[in-house]
Amino acid sequence: MLRLKPKANARAIRRGAPWVFDNELVMDRRSKALTPGSIATLEDAERTPLATVAVNPASRIVGRVLDRDASAQIDDAWFTTRLRKALTLRDSVYDAPFYRLIHAEGDGLPGVVIDRFGDTCVVQPNAAWAEAHLEVLTDALVAVTGVSNVLKNAGGRGRALEGLDDVDAVLRGAAPDGPMPVQMNGATYMADLTGGQKTGLFYDQRDNQGFVARLAGGKTVLDVFTHVGGFGLAALAGGATRTLAVDGSAPALLLAEDGASRMNAADRFETRQGDAFAVMDALAAEDTRFDVVICDPPAFAPNKPALDKGLRAYERVARLAATLVAEDGYLVLCSCSHAADLNSFTGACLRGIGRSGRWAQLIHTGTAGPDHPLLPQLAESGYLKALVFRL
Amino acid sequence: MLRLKPKANARAIRRGAPWVFDNELVMDRRSKALTPGSIATLEDAERTPLATVAVNPASRIVGRVLDRDASAQIDDAWFTTRLRKALTLRDSVYDAPFYRLIHAEGDGLPGVVIDRFGDTCVVQPNAAWAEAHLEVLTDALVAVTGVSNVLKNAGGRGRALEGLDDVDAVLRGAAPDGPMPVQMNGATYMADLTGGQKTGLFYDQRDNQGFVARLAGGKTVLDVFTHVGGFGLAALAGGATRTLAVDGSAPALLLAEDGASRMNAADRFETRQGDAFAVMDALAAEDTRFDVVICDPPAFAPNKPALDKGLRAYERVARLAATLVAEDGYLVLCSCSHAADLNSFTGACLRGIGRSGRWAQLIHTGTAGPDHPLLPQLAESGYLKALVFRL
Repeated sequence: MLRLKPKANARAIRRGAPWVFDNELVMDRRSKALTPGSIATLEDAERTPLATVAVNPASRIVGRVLDRDASAQIDDAWFTTRLRKALTLRDSVYDAPFYRLIHAEGDGLPGVVIDRFGDTCVVQPNAAWAEAHLEVLTDALVAVTGVSNVLKNAGGRGRALEGLDDVDAVLRGAAPDGPMPVQMNGATYMADLTGGQKTGLFYDQRDNQGFVARLAGGKTVLDVFTHVGGFGLAALAGGATRTLAVDGSAPALLLAEDGASRMNAADRFETRQGDAFAVMDALAAEDTRFDVVICDPPAFAPNKPALDKGLRAYERVARLAATLVAEDGYLVLCSCSHAADLNSFTGACLRGIGRSGRWAQLIHTGTAGPDHPLLPQLAESGYLKALVFRL
Repeated sequence: MLRLKPKANARAIRRGAPWVFDNELVMDRRSKALTPGSIATLEDAERTPLATVAVNPASRIVGRVLDRDASAQIDDAWFTTRLRKALTLRDSVYDAPFYRLIHAEGDGLPGVVIDRFGDTCVVQPNAAWAEAHLEVLTDALVAVTGVSNVLKNAGGRGRALEGLDDVDAVLRGAAPDGPMPVQMNGATYMADLTGGQKTGLFYDQRDNQGFVARLAGGKTVLDVFTHVGGFGLAALAGGATRTLAVDGSAPALLLAEDGASRMNAADRFETRQGDAFAVMDALAAEDTRFDVVICDPPAFAPNKPALDKGLRAYERVARLAATLVAEDGYLVLCSCSHAADLNSFTGACLRGIGRSGRWAQLIHTGTAGPDHPLLPQLAESGYLKALVFRL
């Protein structure tokens, strides 16, 4: 049992807030002794039950709301219901079983991310309760989806805060024996599911990549921070005459090249390995211009202390990238920073574009796709922003 | 010539702000005597030329920036350049010539809206300068697009503020002799181009309607404020088993029914004419539920004084509509109110959904399509919000 302090906001919990922080709770000897990952009832200061929560006294987020029913049993049936609800959404939106199946709080499984690649699911249990319930979660996952293989990816940044290790594992079936082809927006991506964050595959930009594919026909494209070919291969599928893809990771670029080959588009696809800023400087010095330039960098502002520095980095990216855009061309600027909201990110982009001496129309504002549902009460969960400018 | 006051924000103009208000300008006898719709040079307080502006001393927006080149000639060549640039964007995004061709400030023609329906363009000259330059604009429009027919729609709400009349006209060619079929998202819409605002056709929701079409397969759909079938016909095209479309306008519903017939989907399409709130109350009383409910009401908060009242109206719509959504169904809530920004609109929707006793995931946040480009410096121009919840 966890109890809210008298001045804590019980109404926020009743309205759907998913997290309870240590400073909102009566943290006595008994509550501090609760096992990380155990399940408890959350009560308000008057001892009225509010919700069933997962507990981790070692984390700043001591309570994660699992169910607004304070007497819920977190068992196989419970996981099955949540997973079925999530699967129904994906089934109604996607033709093929390649998507994010569970997007943590947004799908009612706090701290849990599950990506599906056909017959294989990759689970990220990024909270102690999920680690503690991994067996029952995996059983329910196999039963609901029918997948043969379930892999555990322990690379999530949140795991250390929860006191969890970083050891990957095969939970069911087997790991694929090499990168797996995944079709999105008419492009072929090679997903290396066991290679970790650096060479996995992210589904969140699918709709934004589709938007870029739509306008890439007959155009030259520069895709900076391409990872395994994210926007660049989509642009090829959309008919780009030539794509230059830039990334710091040589293994990621090899996967991107493999994807282009499988699309029979290797002759329209080039890669350049190196620091994104340095490569953009070099391209500017060569006076190279592209009809479409995309920059989808890592999170420059992952948290509030990093916000100012992060926004300056986004501004610099925007300035450098804008100089590489041909007249009437398109500039796609993305941010996956939780701390930078849409307005501050847009402002940074506009300052950067302005400093390059260019003027912009904003023709599209994109977010993550529908397989990344948000808990509306948790503003931070809307991390992804993609702005499409025309210069 | 117009001159900024010493304390006016010349930097904002240099950075792309499109409007100069009366209280920012030296309004002496000479500037007050300028003809509404005339062209002038805007200077800062030190008499440095800043921009070429359109002048209307009778409006609160005395100056509208036409060109950041202070010596620009606003002639046929100038209009041709702007229109060509706008057409290039639409050509790269759309397969067929049905789109908003000019979105006012976002396309560098302040106060001017032009919608294209194949061989016919409908011009809304909502600012005095556009009315004054209508002949040269129309000539350039015909030359750039090759359309045969150009209609003037004088129904824009902004025209009265600019001292303009509300008399429609045929500027070139002829008005179509009846509603015209327009294809979007696989649906057929009947656009009555001479029937005015009430039964025209709006392109701004096209991408959001496409999103709904994608998830409507096999589902029952309620489309409240359907107009000429906006979301409802898209849902039919996406495979909805049944669509009930509600609107206060009988002529609009007749056009919607005509569209459904042309799609050979009349047997899956019903309409109900009446007040949206009353119809939703009646459906709730009948205990009718739908897999997908869409509410795309008129602007409840068109300006700041109407904001609080408008947000309460959005909350009421959300509450009523949420009660009509089946378990695991979808609720699409839209706002075209300039004054209600995304956060306040989302908040109103969540309060309404909460009051209905339902819980929501947010799976999509949509804006107007790419044929409605925004001047990023003009936040208000991003008026359209479409939120897709799953309950």
